[in-house]
Amino acid sequence: MAETEKPVGVAVLGLGNVGTEVVRIMEDSAEDLAARIGAPLQLRGIGVRRVAADRGVPVELLTEDVEALVARDDVDIVVELMGPVEPARRAILAALEHGKSVVTANKALLAQSTGKLATAAEKARVDLYFEAAVAGAIPVIRPLTQSLAGDRVLRVAGIVNGTTNYILSAMSETGASYDDALAEAGALGYAEADPTADVEGYDAAAKAAILASIAFHTRVQADDVYREGITAVSAEDFASAKALGCTIKLLSICERITNADGSEQVSARVYPALVPLTHPLASVNGAFNAVFVEAAAAGQLMFYGQGAGGAPTASAVLGDVVMAARNRVQGGRGPRESKYARLPIAPIGVVPTRYYLSLYVHDKPGVLSKVASEFANRGVSIAEVRQEGLVDEDGQPIGARIVVLTHRATDAALSETVTALKELDVVSSVASVLRMEGTE
Amino acid sequence: MAETEKPVGVAVLGLGNVGTEVVRIMEDSAEDLAARIGAPLQLRGIGVRRVAADRGVPVELLTEDVEALVARDDVDIVVELMGPVEPARRAILAALEHGKSVVTANKALLAQSTGKLATAAEKARVDLYFEAAVAGAIPVIRPLTQSLAGDRVLRVAGIVNGTTNYILSAMSETGASYDDALAEAGALGYAEADPTADVEGYDAAAKAAILASIAFHTRVQADDVYREGITAVSAEDFASAKALGCTIKLLSICERITNADGSEQVSARVYPALVPLTHPLASVNGAFNAVFVEAAAAGQLMFYGQGAGGAPTASAVLGDVVMAARNRVQGGRGPRESKYARLPIAPIGVVPTRYYLSLYVHDKPGVLSKVASEFANRGVSIAEVRQEGLVDEDGQPIGARIVVLTHRATDAALSETVTALKELDVVSSVASVLRMEGTE
Repeated sequence: MAETEKPVGVAVLGLGNVGTEVVRIMEDSAEDLAARIGAPLQLRGIGVRRVAADRGVPVELLTEDVEALVARDDVDIVVELMGPVEPARRAILAALEHGKSVVTANKALLAQSTGKLATAAEKARVDLYFEAAVAGAIPVIRPLTQSLAGDRVLRVAGIVNGTTNYILSAMSETGASYDDALAEAGALGYAEADPTADVEGYDAAAKAAILASIAFHTRVQADDVYREGITAVSAEDFASAKALGCTIKLLSICERITNADGSEQVSARVYPALVPLTHPLASVNGAFNAVFVEAAAAGQLMFYGQGAGGAPTASAVLGDVVMAARNRVQGGRGPRESKYARLPIAPIGVVPTRYYLSLYVHDKPGVLSKVASEFANRGVSIAEVRQEGLVDEDGQPIGARIVVLTHRATDAALSETVTALKELDVVSSVASVLRMEGTE
Repeated sequence: MAETEKPVGVAVLGLGNVGTEVVRIMEDSAEDLAARIGAPLQLRGIGVRRVAADRGVPVELLTEDVEALVARDDVDIVVELMGPVEPARRAILAALEHGKSVVTANKALLAQSTGKLATAAEKARVDLYFEAAVAGAIPVIRPLTQSLAGDRVLRVAGIVNGTTNYILSAMSETGASYDDALAEAGALGYAEADPTADVEGYDAAAKAAILASIAFHTRVQADDVYREGITAVSAEDFASAKALGCTIKLLSICERITNADGSEQVSARVYPALVPLTHPLASVNGAFNAVFVEAAAAGQLMFYGQGAGGAPTASAVLGDVVMAARNRVQGGRGPRESKYARLPIAPIGVVPTRYYLSLYVHDKPGVLSKVASEFANRGVSIAEVRQEGLVDEDGQPIGARIVVLTHRATDAALSETVTALKELDVVSSVASVLRMEGTE
């Protein structure tokens, strides 16, 4: 059957965890894949930084000349799994110019250059697929671009970084400090030696940019995403969250914001937030990822699964490869991307959320009233307050801690409130300011 | 922009909950949809059983002549939302023959005729989409057919019937009997006056057939699906399940079964099953749906959301309409379906699962040993046994209840065991036999 068809040529760029799995599955499942495509896939070559005999694949497939590989006449689909933005961008643009369909998992590149790459694919009339770039194996890109194409997405909130979710889950379960949980994640291989890209939210911000772009048909780049990491989240915050019926998650949020005049903006932001335990995202633990979507007609949807790892990511990559290959065999292309709405990006100052604050204060009469009036003065409405007295080792009172949960307020109003609180002589410190999501 | 393009003509068949929402969203979101398609959608007509002026749409759009409507030259896409198998089948086949792309949510029809409809669509070289037929708004069909096209699906387990999930959730939460929970569901509009299609698992079986067909590239019809409903599930079963750390859900399961000789079969089945509380499906409550997928490379995935209702279902329908319309505007079609693997259907007898049994026995010495040996004689291994003495109103002993949880056994071996147990003179009755899923 399919074996008599002209094969579809594939070039894989990069032979790390994901590349190795892609090559393995292409070989192990060759027959199944051929049946689904209507023609066999043929691996033409693998671009690597340095050709070596011990890579677990026939050495004659390896090449350091990526430029020549992506230009080969017998290559139809280029799978880019090299990692860094360069030389991936150059290789992808070259592949598109040579009329190859491209599958990539390169979130950093996509979050910088999605417009440029999409334009190049459009010009060449080929497919550019990137299901693996967000949330690994979990189908998110295709549901958002296709299944929800007739709906109006209002909000996307995702747990899309496994390292930080592992750390926060550990802190929640064991009461560990951030430093201890990070050390454990590192020892178990869930955090890299330099965890900055994960714990400071850069990875989650790149994914937020991609999600916002496709959910709102608007170009959003990583630099447009407001970003806070998890390094300041404390064991005390987790204890307070628990008392409020919440846990804390690093969320990548993309939201359609309607202004008073009816015009719309897109907000894309990453920060640790309190999430009620009853919310489906609250039970997404460890290295799992999930993307929660709210749409006007569909209501609430959630997509859950493994967000990283060689095999899960390879599954998403190969789904894209099969779709691109089918389009080749059938002489078409997949659906083009939508015309873009080009909504403006909302600055964080105008974005309303609920807030959780933890303050250390002197334990004097009138403190709570002074604190509360700073909120009231800026129109920030308080939903809940808890005050607890603090004592030193000898049981002597040494002040109090106040936890405040607000109703929705803009970031601008809240920031002004925090500045004013810090200047109050009765306030020793503002220990934490976290947002709360998932309650409206 | 898009308005200058030739419009894409749409005919909607049926104006119930879903049809009404589809028409409303097409009007309210006309500009957004046009931007995403590259051309405006134009509603050409609505097929109804009886034209009347009070349907909330311009009466001149209504027609009783469905045959003429689907044949109109200015109709490109036919959206079938009529409900019953006939006249929907006739209308869809006529539309396909006239070269129209078809979007349908008709699970009963698809579960009977998927092969015939797919062949007609293939012959006409048009799109046949049915995302709304399983799990309403939740993208399931597209992830399975496209995102996982490069992977090997091992198992799909879905909560895809809102009525039964509402009833079972209520029984779990309140300890209510099946009859009381059904009455409540009826009063709240979650169960129909004749709930047979839901509570006997026919609806779930139709959806299992569709899921099995697309997950395993094999034609599975509703008649091929082994089916048990929820009418025999008792409050006592819920109490026992809770004691075992489980809840009870009606599951639609599709599974790839590898025989001893390496050959493969597909099992499709619907039954109420014990599910551990730690499993993601256990917390899918009320009218929500979820589909849990296990694939060789992707690992575990879950898709969660609203499985029914006018607006959620309309969201899925319109996603299909936008995709079909884009394909029209861009002069292509969506990806064809895979070549079919035609795996044989596994009879329920060969399917191994774990079992929960509840027996009433005489409280005599040696009873447990007699009961246990009936399991052992048929190679059914017992994982856990609980025996509790029963007393009458005066506190006099009147026998005992034994709950048995087995390891994996085939349905055939378990059925023989149950027959033998019923013949034991020490056994008064076998009150319940339920399967347990989600523990391996």
